Amino acid sequence: MATPEIEAQLAPLRAAVKEYGDLIRDLKAKSAPKIDIDKAVVELKARKRLLEETEISLAPKEASFDRLKLEDLLKRRFFYDQSFAIYGGVTGLYDFGPMGCSLKANMLQEWRKHFILEEGMLEVDCTSLTPEPVLKASGHVDRFADWMVKDVKNGECFRADHLIKNSIEKLMNDKKVSADVKRDGEDVLARLEGFDDKDMHEVITRFKFKSPITGNDLTEPIAFNLMFPTQIGPTGDFKAFLRPETAQGIFVNFKRLLEFNQGKLPFAAAQIGLGFRNEISPRQGLIRVREFTMCEIEHFVDPEDKSFPKFSKIADQKLVLFPHVINWMEHQRRKSPSEMLLQTKMTIYIMFQKTVANETLGYYMARCHQFLMKVGIDGRRLRFRQHLSNEMAHYAQDCWDAEILTSYGWIECVGNADRACYDLLQHYKATNVKLVAEKKLPQPVDVDIVEAQANMALLGKSFKKEAKKIQSALQQMTSEQVTSLEADLLSKKLFNLNINGEAYPLTPDLINIKKYSKKIHVQEITPSVIEPSYGIGRIMYALLEHSFRQREGDEQRTFLAFKPLVAPIKCSVLPISANDQLVAGIEAVKEELSRYELSYKVDDSSGTIGRRYARTDEIGIPFGITVDFESVKTTPYTVTIRHAETMSQIRLEVSELGRLISDLVAGRQQWTDAQAKYPKFESTTD
Amino acid sequence: MATPEIEAQLAPLRAAVKEYGDLIRDLKAKSAPKIDIDKAVVELKARKRLLEETEISLAPKEASFDRLKLEDLLKRRFFYDQSFAIYGGVTGLYDFGPMGCSLKANMLQEWRKHFILEEGMLEVDCTSLTPEPVLKASGHVDRFADWMVKDVKNGECFRADHLIKNSIEKLMNDKKVSADVKRDGEDVLARLEGFDDKDMHEVITRFKFKSPITGNDLTEPIAFNLMFPTQIGPTGDFKAFLRPETAQGIFVNFKRLLEFNQGKLPFAAAQIGLGFRNEISPRQGLIRVREFTMCEIEHFVDPEDKSFPKFSKIADQKLVLFPHVINWMEHQRRKSPSEMLLQTKMTIYIMFQKTVANETLGYYMARCHQFLMKVGIDGRRLRFRQHLSNEMAHYAQDCWDAEILTSYGWIECVGNADRACYDLLQHYKATNVKLVAEKKLPQPVDVDIVEAQANMALLGKSFKKEAKKIQSALQQMTSEQVTSLEADLLSKKLFNLNINGEAYPLTPDLINIKKYSKKIHVQEITPSVIEPSYGIGRIMYALLEHSFRQREGDEQRTFLAFKPLVAPIKCSVLPISANDQLVAGIEAVKEELSRYELSYKVDDSSGTIGRRYARTDEIGIPFGITVDFESVKTTPYTVTIRHAETMSQIRLEVSELGRLISDLVAGRQQWTDAQAKYPKFESTTD
Repeated sequence: MATPEIEAQLAPLRAAVKEYGDLIRDLKAKSAPKIDIDKAVVELKARKRLLEETEISLAPKEASFDRLKLEDLLKRRFFYDQSFAIYGGVTGLYDFGPMGCSLKANMLQEWRKHFILEEGMLEVDCTSLTPEPVLKASGHVDRFADWMVKDVKNGECFRADHLIKNSIEKLMNDKKVSADVKRDGEDVLARLEGFDDKDMHEVITRFKFKSPITGNDLTEPIAFNLMFPTQIGPTGDFKAFLRPETAQGIFVNFKRLLEFNQGKLPFAAAQIGLGFRNEISPRQGLIRVREFTMCEIEHFVDPEDKSFPKFSKIADQKLVLFPHVINWMEHQRRKSPSEMLLQTKMTIYIMFQKTVANETLGYYMARCHQFLMKVGIDGRRLRFRQHLSNEMAHYAQDCWDAEILTSYGWIECVGNADRACYDLLQHYKATNVKLVAEKKLPQPVDVDIVEAQANMALLGKSFKKEAKKIQSALQQMTSEQVTSLEADLLSKKLFNLNINGEAYPLTPDLINIKKYSKKIHVQEITPSVIEPSYGIGRIMYALLEHSFRQREGDEQRTFLAFKPLVAPIKCSVLPISANDQLVAGIEAVKEELSRYELSYKVDDSSGTIGRRYARTDEIGIPFGITVDFESVKTTPYTVTIRHAETMSQIRLEVSELGRLISDLVAGRQQWTDAQAKYPKFESTTD
Repeated sequence: MATPEIEAQLAPLRAAVKEYGDLIRDLKAKSAPKIDIDKAVVELKARKRLLEETEISLAPKEASFDRLKLEDLLKRRFFYDQSFAIYGGVTGLYDFGPMGCSLKANMLQEWRKHFILEEGMLEVDCTSLTPEPVLKASGHVDRFADWMVKDVKNGECFRADHLIKNSIEKLMNDKKVSADVKRDGEDVLARLEGFDDKDMHEVITRFKFKSPITGNDLTEPIAFNLMFPTQIGPTGDFKAFLRPETAQGIFVNFKRLLEFNQGKLPFAAAQIGLGFRNEISPRQGLIRVREFTMCEIEHFVDPEDKSFPKFSKIADQKLVLFPHVINWMEHQRRKSPSEMLLQTKMTIYIMFQKTVANETLGYYMARCHQFLMKVGIDGRRLRFRQHLSNEMAHYAQDCWDAEILTSYGWIECVGNADRACYDLLQHYKATNVKLVAEKKLPQPVDVDIVEAQANMALLGKSFKKEAKKIQSALQQMTSEQVTSLEADLLSKKLFNLNINGEAYPLTPDLINIKKYSKKIHVQEITPSVIEPSYGIGRIMYALLEHSFRQREGDEQRTFLAFKPLVAPIKCSVLPISANDQLVAGIEAVKEELSRYELSYKVDDSSGTIGRRYARTDEIGIPFGITVDFESVKTTPYTVTIRHAETMSQIRLEVSELGRLISDLVAGRQQWTDAQAKYPKFESTTD
């Protein structure tokens, strides 16, 4: 089946396997030490695995993926489509139809189970409307922006980095462009993610890039904030934004959550909800949208101990890692998907404790991998890419994106970041509300306390109503501040207390300095935060691509091979004919499925059974239940179940349906188990 | 237990029962005809039921409801709390903590099952961001507003109707105010819901109402639009709003949904999602918020046939109806809750087909009642109130609010409205996209068609490139328009065709008029829409009030008696002591519960078992599983289950736990069934 191109790619891998096969034979012939032979065997196995996986990854199934066919199916069967289409549509906004809705709901339910329930997380549900000061503190008001260039004549806006990327790619395909310029362009692409406005302006000027639509000149890059602004209340002066992420809602609730967890660290909070980003000119369907569902976890942990109690449970799990040390391969990302896949496989499996910052981050990456596998992402098209240092926020300690390979290239679908204690500190600075946990010290410590106490009788005489305010300001001084106050009182006999810009001259008689020693049992710490952040729409799109199939020998017959767990509808119910005799059988099946809360779709239209199978396969219904004349001939009634992906069928009693399909959906049984247990049914109609 | 006031209210009901008891004895003594005795017995039963329900409704349980205690519990155990509290908070915005989140998720899951799955609805998930033209068409841009008055000095805003209501209520409690003025105030309250700005201004002026905070004068009422405005994209000229309801997303997708349903009527689409309303000055906690989760159904139906196929399934269900014909009792709504309850009960049970507009609306009201019962609303505090004609939108044909009685009075939680074909027509007018379904005619009809066909050869010569445009304009003309065109051509030998304001003079040679008869089999109809619309936050708040209990004899010990179906956590797992011997038992229980996906909370803290029960009762955990020394003495392990509401306990094997509790949660078994099956366990520690 392999094409010459594929063979050319496989040849060096085959040679590499052969090389080690030969070597081992040699070693054995020479009676070499066992340790040398063992080493060679390990290497041989690794090379064989690489060859095998590359063969699978290059198989024609992916190669022949036809995005237009998938998009046609998704639109026609209303998985999702552009919002407000009858009003001309809005780019970057999509509505989910019944199929997409159910797929999404099933993915979210699994996410809730996999993370919130299994890990005992604290779920919260915060508002999208967010007052400006909160997002000022988090840095979004000042920095959550993309660089934008405008057509100087008609004002049309483009995202600067996307414009550069697209313009260079066009240049690459232009035969008239010199090799030197192409090399220059390649170099720009490799470094683009770290570019600021000046770098981009330099590139646009040097390459003489214009508006791709009008050919007009472009402005210098301008920062465009990606948050949607609004106001709360009737006065118009309470500025707010729609949240760009759900995370801040968790941070501002930190105190309540810590209290809910009885003051103990570590704990994780999670939120499933909407995020909003006013993208400059979104394209690429579900991958870049202006309103989206995200699932975020904020795991709060002692910054000095990021070990994870359950780490041993995932310690042996292998992930495809793409650490920044081998990111020199990054510039090769621009090539075709199959080449990219090959490159990634070459990054070898690395046990992540050697490269990932800490156990907690590693644990969440492994759980992320498990989740994506559960919902049906193809493991051969998944990798974890570490951020380059210039990609990460300055406060972040480490960040690994789960990237999924689609026909658009590798797409960031999940971010796994160690954000240190940045967010909690920022909100503390903005509100003066301490966002800390108490950590028990290994042993009590004596600390020296210096306090300034007001002499209220005298203070009241001098400052009247303001005395209270002065007393409170004195109480809030740190030991260091009081020490400096004491020095002033001694040397100058005067201390100027500053309260909100107002100076209050205090003389020594107004203040008593008190010094004592105190035993401290706990220490206040600002927790570090590990943040896994899931973009559900992107994962769903990748899942749709990975599940899309064409029947061999009949490429027009496309279908979606969903995992039963996430399939929008679990069963189709198909009477073999419209004969009234079958009605009792159909009703019995419906009742049995309802009892187990299994969604189904009855297709009693007049098409042939084969055509009806094709129609239900198209929307990814994994199990087709057919009621035929055999079904109702004797009691108990029997039916056949057809497994859409393999088209194989078995026959069983109606009363066994609910439990079996529930088990297949939950993954407690596989289809092969069912085939082993129940008699095969041979159909001539598929 | 009854107070003298309660006895006074019950006395006439007792007398009414006694009257018929006596009557029946008399009739029997006189050997009266059986039919007379039967009639009297029916009446006696009705009177007894009324007495009984009134007794229950007036029982001290509700009377002693303490909102502050409930609010304290909800805050302390983080069901929900004000958003951004560390930033000073925002009125009308609330964050849900782990308990509230889970309660809400369980309610939504049940809603999805009860409506979307059981009724085979088409679920959609549309964006919150909505372009201005969509909401202009729906009427929201022009009319979705509340009247607001401002403090003339400091600009503070008040919702005019709320200000009037609160001011009149204050007046009512003022002993210095004359009876005449009070009567006047009472009259205003009864008519307030139908007031426009002029009516409200008149009342504010007549009663001399001032700002309740400063005592300053107030402005005339100003319309304040309740939608949150924003812009989409970088140019700033694409105006949009956050949707005030999810319904419009369904209407603009009507064509896709009809197609998904293979062109057939009736069908229902549903959406669960956020709604946003910029309330002027929200108070009353979860009842009036600025961002909320709603569940809406749009049931599309032939306007000439609103019968419902499954109507017979609910035809016997009894609802408490409050039709507008007895809305003269409306003015009595202002009295105390227990009096209100009594009034409502007196509205008698009415079989709704006599008062509700059509079967479809009636069906949804009955299903609404079922849903509210399932999640745990107290049926004695639920009524369906029909809108007065001046309350309804002008296009609406009928509207019934499901109102739930809380300590804030009767609260509208669900609207059930027949919106006729208003929305689809409005979007058709705005977009020129036909939003219609085809209805098969009982028999084919012959219609006369008149068409204007362009003579393209000549038209091309005269109009060059514009010929195509003219041809297309001619094709789109209705038969009436062509007839008038023909008349012009005959009389004036000229017809001026207008395309987007441009005139194209057409002479007879350019056009052929074609007339023929056509057999029509279908008719295009704009469907009517029945819309049930659920406010989940309001239902949740009512549910919390209705589930709130105090232990008899220990009023400090409050708890939430949730139905297991919606309880945020299904089980607590409590080791009787910290002894290591119990660990294996605990682990076995956890494993068994996980296998059945039942949420649990282990409380192995050092408190007494009684104190730990109280703590888990407080957050509404319905089942407490205790592991004691007996549990692990022999295999198979056994444990006790304690039913929080009744505090009764049973003992059973660990391996039986999962199935039993799943059944109790799903309502397949009741606690009394479990008590009958398993041995009772007597605890001395509760």
